[in-house]
Amino acid sequence: MINLAIFGTGRIGTVHALNAAANPEANVKYLVDPVRSNHMTELAKKTAAIEADVDTVFADADVHGIVISSSTDSHADLLVQAARAGKAVFCEKPISLDFATTISTVESLEQSGIRCMMGFQRRYDPDFRTLKERLSNGTAGHIEHILMISRDPFPPPISYIKRSGGMFLDQSIHDLDMARYLLGEEIKTVYAVGNCLEDAAIGDAGDIDTAMITLTSISGRFVQISNSRRSAFGLEQRVEVVCSKEVLSIGNRLHSLLTIADHQGLTSSSPENYFIDRFAWSYKAEMQAFVELIETGTPALTNIRDGLEAQRLAVAALESMHTGKIVELER
Amino acid sequence: MINLAIFGTGRIGTVHALNAAANPEANVKYLVDPVRSNHMTELAKKTAAIEADVDTVFADADVHGIVISSSTDSHADLLVQAARAGKAVFCEKPISLDFATTISTVESLEQSGIRCMMGFQRRYDPDFRTLKERLSNGTAGHIEHILMISRDPFPPPISYIKRSGGMFLDQSIHDLDMARYLLGEEIKTVYAVGNCLEDAAIGDAGDIDTAMITLTSISGRFVQISNSRRSAFGLEQRVEVVCSKEVLSIGNRLHSLLTIADHQGLTSSSPENYFIDRFAWSYKAEMQAFVELIETGTPALTNIRDGLEAQRLAVAALESMHTGKIVELER
Amino acid sequence: MINLAIFGTGRIGTVHALNAAANPEANVKYLVDPVRSNHMTELAKKTAAIEADVDTVFADADVHGIVISSSTDSHADLLVQAARAGKAVFCEKPISLDFATTISTVESLEQSGIRCMMGFQRRYDPDFRTLKERLSNGTAGHIEHILMISRDPFPPPISYIKRSGGMFLDQSIHDLDMARYLLGEEIKTVYAVGNCLEDAAIGDAGDIDTAMITLTSISGRFVQISNSRRSAFGLEQRVEVVCSKEVLSIGNRLHSLLTIADHQGLTSSSPENYFIDRFAWSYKAEMQAFVELIETGTPALTNIRDGLEAQRLAVAALESMHTGKIVELER
Amino acid sequence: MINLAIFGTGRIGTVHALNAAANPEANVKYLVDPVRSNHMTELAKKTAAIEADVDTVFADADVHGIVISSSTDSHADLLVQAARAGKAVFCEKPISLDFATTISTVESLEQSGIRCMMGFQRRYDPDFRTLKERLSNGTAGHIEHILMISRDPFPPPISYIKRSGGMFLDQSIHDLDMARYLLGEEIKTVYAVGNCLEDAAIGDAGDIDTAMITLTSISGRFVQISNSRRSAFGLEQRVEVVCSKEVLSIGNRLHSLLTIADHQGLTSSSPENYFIDRFAWSYKAEMQAFVELIETGTPALTNIRDGLEAQRLAVAALESMHTGKIVELER
Repeated sequence: MINLAIFGTGRIGTVHALNAAANPEANVKYLVDPVRSNHMTELAKKTAAIEADVDTVFADADVHGIVISSSTDSHADLLVQAARAGKAVFCEKPISLDFATTISTVESLEQSGIRCMMGFQRRYDPDFRTLKERLSNGTAGHIEHILMISRDPFPPPISYIKRSGGMFLDQSIHDLDMARYLLGEEIKTVYAVGNCLEDAAIGDAGDIDTAMITLTSISGRFVQISNSRRSAFGLEQRVEVVCSKEVLSIGNRLHSLLTIADHQGLTSSSPENYFIDRFAWSYKAEMQAFVELIETGTPALTNIRDGLEAQRLAVAALESMHTGKIVELER
Repeated sequence: MINLAIFGTGRIGTVHALNAAANPEANVKYLVDPVRSNHMTELAKKTAAIEADVDTVFADADVHGIVISSSTDSHADLLVQAARAGKAVFCEKPISLDFATTISTVESLEQSGIRCMMGFQRRYDPDFRTLKERLSNGTAGHIEHILMISRDPFPPPISYIKRSGGMFLDQSIHDLDMARYLLGEEIKTVYAVGNCLEDAAIGDAGDIDTAMITLTSISGRFVQISNSRRSAFGLEQRVEVVCSKEVLSIGNRLHSLLTIADHQGLTSSSPENYFIDRFAWSYKAEMQAFVELIETGTPALTNIRDGLEAQRLAVAALESMHTGKIVELER
Repeated sequence: MINLAIFGTGRIGTVHALNAAANPEANVKYLVDPVRSNHMTELAKKTAAIEADVDTVFADADVHGIVISSSTDSHADLLVQAARAGKAVFCEKPISLDFATTISTVESLEQSGIRCMMGFQRRYDPDFRTLKERLSNGTAGHIEHILMISRDPFPPPISYIKRSGGMFLDQSIHDLDMARYLLGEEIKTVYAVGNCLEDAAIGDAGDIDTAMITLTSISGRFVQISNSRRSAFGLEQRVEVVCSKEVLSIGNRLHSLLTIADHQGLTSSSPENYFIDRFAWSYKAEMQAFVELIETGTPALTNIRDGLEAQRLAVAALESMHTGKIVELER
Repeated sequence: MINLAIFGTGRIGTVHALNAAANPEANVKYLVDPVRSNHMTELAKKTAAIEADVDTVFADADVHGIVISSSTDSHADLLVQAARAGKAVFCEKPISLDFATTISTVESLEQSGIRCMMGFQRRYDPDFRTLKERLSNGTAGHIEHILMISRDPFPPPISYIKRSGGMFLDQSIHDLDMARYLLGEEIKTVYAVGNCLEDAAIGDAGDIDTAMITLTSISGRFVQISNSRRSAFGLEQRVEVVCSKEVLSIGNRLHSLLTIADHQGLTSSSPENYFIDRFAWSYKAEMQAFVELIETGTPALTNIRDGLEAQRLAVAALESMHTGKIVELER
């Protein structure tokens, strides 16, 4: 049985705690959150976990792995402590809002040799896994270009926007990670434009709500990303991979199979709007992968360097938007 | 050059006249309609045709074929005259509202040996042709059962209802023909129910607006037909052929590729509502087939007996509905 | 906390046991199965239940409800015992393969006044619930006719076929129940045809694998049901409700959002083939409804009489097929 | 009756000649092509036109308009002659491969005051017209960003590539025109990348086969264009307009309504692959618009300046690709 400690009992920490508790190979030993709440106590009861503080977790030799789903500003420090304590880590993105800290943290972790994975849950979505397999086995031919469309149904609260690190680091990072993952190679140039077109309050908070990113890979293939903080349709999460023999696409997940037809047309449902629901299966599979990583060393679909590289692209996108120039990545 | 005479200059006669005129192998020599009209004169000008009466047509040895798209009560008589005059015929359904007349007319025609085809235009729809080919070449395996859905967008005028011969003979007959055509064998039993659920005036006129028909073929396979004089969606024309290796379907033809998405859902267009538009290509192909039938004897996809057999099924459906019993066809 | 006993630890009994255990208001006190197995012991451990015999359950005053998912021949007897013991029941269909026994059992239950519901899980499917709501609130206008298509991906084993009570009682019964539910009124006539077109072994076992059923309701509206034990596409579960103002449809649930396009066309995924997965949410909602029925008396979407009435239609369908006549139901 | 002369009897010239001949308000008086051919003679017969040379056309005061669908290198000169002769012009893109010539030609035309329109036929596609209307009437809210996907089914012959002016001027120009048209404002910056990923022979000819373009409009809205000379799926012609209240999309036009389902999935048809078929209706509407422009002065959906502005964007895209920089357009 793998003993885990979950840091953070917010929205995503709750998902991880429940998935870990439901996993037959895992045990949620500790829940840690600087802010104690009724919700936390309730969650501790449901998962048969102990409410503890950080030191208790790292002092307990029986804890095999930690899940970092606490606030972003705590990630780097917890990662370093985990490295020192020799505990496996699962970490939500981003590693740090400060890219230099991200780099030094990743270097520490890699030197420590601990097992770790990043919370890019989309890689664990069953459709994205099937897509990746078809790309890998050659059926589709070679990739020529990729289109990605990720739109949120509604913008997050301004308070969230302010501490999010900005749209590229908060939202686009998932697409940037997916671009590297699907292409199977690194990116050479980044071009990004963005604007605040939907909600003036986002602009007042110094952020954008609409972004278009173009990536060129080292071998000369292309990725176009279209991001938006709000879609009139709902949570859009689509990808189209144009290959020499096939065009592979993943569409939106609709919340219902019911269609309504009248003389105006045929109306099918809007998407499942809550990302926690949309990716429910992915979060379960991610936890299972973390358990297997700890138990058997089976590599996860992500590692800590994927967090660094996706952030490198997000940082480049921000620079491109601010300078109005194409950013060439040095390697 | 094939010289044709078109009987009837109404909606469908106009379509045939224009298609014949546009066909490089055909010439519209005469237009015949007991009711002269500006429309007829206009049509004669467009098609470079002469406005004539029935006798002129049959007395002209240069007329190779006649197209019967006049009112239903004239069909049988024109067919018999064509048989006597040795002219090829293309005839719109039904042959006669009186089934005994239909039988004797078909017998006369078959004895005369003239070339003839029925106006079941759906057989000439490109998608139905592809469907039939796939069924014939064995790719799909053998047919197990067929579902057919045919709904009109709006009921016809009551005046039309009254002289139509009733819903089975006017509307269902196309599905009954298609059932025989796709199955490639004859029908053994017919069960039908019907009701007036949409428009009380149709009931007052002694007709129904909703009908469900079940056919059993001689070899024991099934067809379910769902008909309605009005659909809230529009002109629905669908078929689903369930085979041992594949399920083949033809959906509605939409009038637009534009979709509109918002938080209510994603709305695609309603169908092309006018059957003349929906089957525009079929009518052209039908005329081409008639020309080839006359020129080279190439059999059309329909012959006059198909008109008889489809009507036999429509008559059986009416009997089943009235008696509340399954009708077994004698052969 | 509601204490439950689960009878039967097969495929569906396992689903109910796990759903009950996961329900915060329920407790699985006993598992009962005449055949003890490792699977049962494992399930008892997972659900913290006691492996017990029938008498223990009925003797325990702390058991509030029983779930009957044991073999069909045990249903009626367990229902009667539950009635005597005053325990609420959830019963899988059918009540008994013998219709007279079904009738007498339902009468006993209704006299006893115990709370009970039938396992017609499709009523709890979220899309069918939305459909029913839209029909009830009048937005769609009034129902004119309904088409239902239910096809299994693969036929069940012949051993299952032999004790299933036949295709109408085993498979069509779900559509027959749904027909009554959606129409909101009773059925007046039943017409059914069936054949063994897919698998000769099913015919040898005295059953059919393809069935077409037509229902006429008391008010003169229609239902067409198309059933098959095997579809080349997979598990098809569709319905189309043709109303005066709207046409409402529920399509198949596909197992993937990935599409693959090449010059042959665009291929989307086949359906989720396992009914336990397809209706996973329904089974959870059903268990929740049973808990609420016991706790608060909130009526479930089904009661024991729905089991009787659906079976009445299945029996009539069988009679219609065997006699070649329309069966009129007496009321 | 409007008398027209058609320059060029190739693929697109033939379409225009036939559409003009079928138009009840128009008469094809002359066909002009430096290379006489059997096809031209045949076409002259079908359209009742005279095979003539350039001078005859411009000397004939009865010619009201000319259609320029000859080889690109002849466009500018014919336009200037039309301006001098005071004849209305319909001109296929591009005006000239040399942008300076394009600019001076457009200036000449505008000074001459003759009526003219450009052959951007996509503006006349019925779905794009409906889209534009919905954008104009405010139902959809304001545009935030636009995605355009245009892919050819197969690359053109290398001989065509060599005299095409390159991918941006030959293919992307239609999307660049559509971007301006839908946005209803001019473009401020252009970023483009391209590569030869599909067919090395295209690269050897100095051209690319894959291009990604990003446009920023003066008011700060975005357009992403994805172009390719070959798609494994076929002729893809899609657009998605993300507005504040709605997301509007136009999908591919499929060549068939037949779908084929088996355990591998459900396969619908590939697109209509020949652009002449895909836009058949547009070409007819375009010719009708030209006739109305001449007859009544009703402005067409395009004018000669649209040809200039679209080319300006194509030239900027080429510069951006070659320099690796964002090109800012001066105005």
